Amino acid sequence: MTKKDVIVREDLLGTNKQIAGEIREALRGRGILAVNFLSSPGAGKTSLLERIAERLRDEARIAVIEGDIETERDAERIRAKGVPAWQITTGGACHLEAKMIAKVLPEVDPSIEFLFIENVGNLVCPAGYELGEHLRCVLLSTPEGDDKPKKYPKAFTTSDALILTKSDLLPYLPFDTTRAAREALELNPRLRVFITSAVRNEGLEALIAFFRERRDGLVRHA
Amino acid sequence: MTKKDVIVREDLLGTNKQIAGEIREALRGRGILAVNFLSSPGAGKTSLLERIAERLRDEARIAVIEGDIETERDAERIRAKGVPAWQITTGGACHLEAKMIAKVLPEVDPSIEFLFIENVGNLVCPAGYELGEHLRCVLLSTPEGDDKPKKYPKAFTTSDALILTKSDLLPYLPFDTTRAAREALELNPRLRVFITSAVRNEGLEALIAFFRERRDGLVRHA
Repeated sequence: MTKKDVIVREDLLGTNKQIAGEIREALRGRGILAVNFLSSPGAGKTSLLERIAERLRDEARIAVIEGDIETERDAERIRAKGVPAWQITTGGACHLEAKMIAKVLPEVDPSIEFLFIENVGNLVCPAGYELGEHLRCVLLSTPEGDDKPKKYPKAFTTSDALILTKSDLLPYLPFDTTRAAREALELNPRLRVFITSAVRNEGLEALIAFFRERRDGLVRHA
Repeated sequence: MTKKDVIVREDLLGTNKQIAGEIREALRGRGILAVNFLSSPGAGKTSLLERIAERLRDEARIAVIEGDIETERDAERIRAKGVPAWQITTGGACHLEAKMIAKVLPEVDPSIEFLFIENVGNLVCPAGYELGEHLRCVLLSTPEGDDKPKKYPKAFTTSDALILTKSDLLPYLPFDTTRAAREALELNPRLRVFITSAVRNEGLEALIAFFRERRDGLVRHA
């Protein structure tokens, strides 16, 4: 029953990388720092973005692109914070691609300073696709377990920051923060590590200072 | 920079389905019920399997196949329970495929009654690949949030059972068990729903009774 058919295969990853490079340059030229958030489903990407939105919306111009397989739920949560948000639904696809971002970008106010992109909840596939981001952040939530970096290495080796989320649940879990950070740093020594709780609104200052520092660097070199 | 190259593409999904069908029939002929566990990373698949192993190992012959991108960690945890376990490391691939199971099966004792397969932690891609299982179970852990079924529908529409895990964390989370179950059942009314805690060893009897009932059905119709 094996069908064989001859098809023309475009070099999809190569094309994605090219489009991502163009997005990265265009945003840099406008002084917009793009941040790509990767994680498993339910690790707290949207909750973290809600807290970031609350803190940044009055002092900086920000926008959010939400990626999901189905539903507008995450974009609605961000819009409820008074921040413009676009929902990309992939209709089954397991990751965002640069061309999806390129399609949304013309609608985004070009005078923003920060563009946050929440990828599809998947700790595996999104790591292989650049979206034109200047900064990639992988989230690991404490209930997922401190053994995850070495089991899902690519999300950690390709990121600039590791954001441990749901630190409020630490008293109820066997999660060892030191082990998780050590494993991730063994894979990628240049990772910046942040410990956060969206519920308690903790750990956000350091993270936002990091985003600001990176945007300042981007603008200086633009 | 778009490279175009002409390649012969095998119908990978069709081939997978064929191999899966062969595995399903072969296992049925031997009276082995195969159960495929899908979930996000860290939803508690291995912890659930540890509890199942503890309860079933003295009264039934069982074996476990563990799927991961990297590391032997999960198979080691199951072997520590005195149950034979094989680790498949996909080396980057985001899901198990039937051919990977076919390669391991000759090593598995043909007189077992239950073969449990833990897929790669990924709520998206594994849903598209049958492994020859007779029963597919999707796990959703309470910290992931009760909004996940409609955001990641395919894992729920293709499963026979929904196993809510980490019920011990419910007091610390906004998770609404009724909402999660209702959303999942709206997608797939034939889902059997189980609520479990591996930490507290709760909800396992009903789940194991379900596995036994399904294996009895398999043997009756063999």
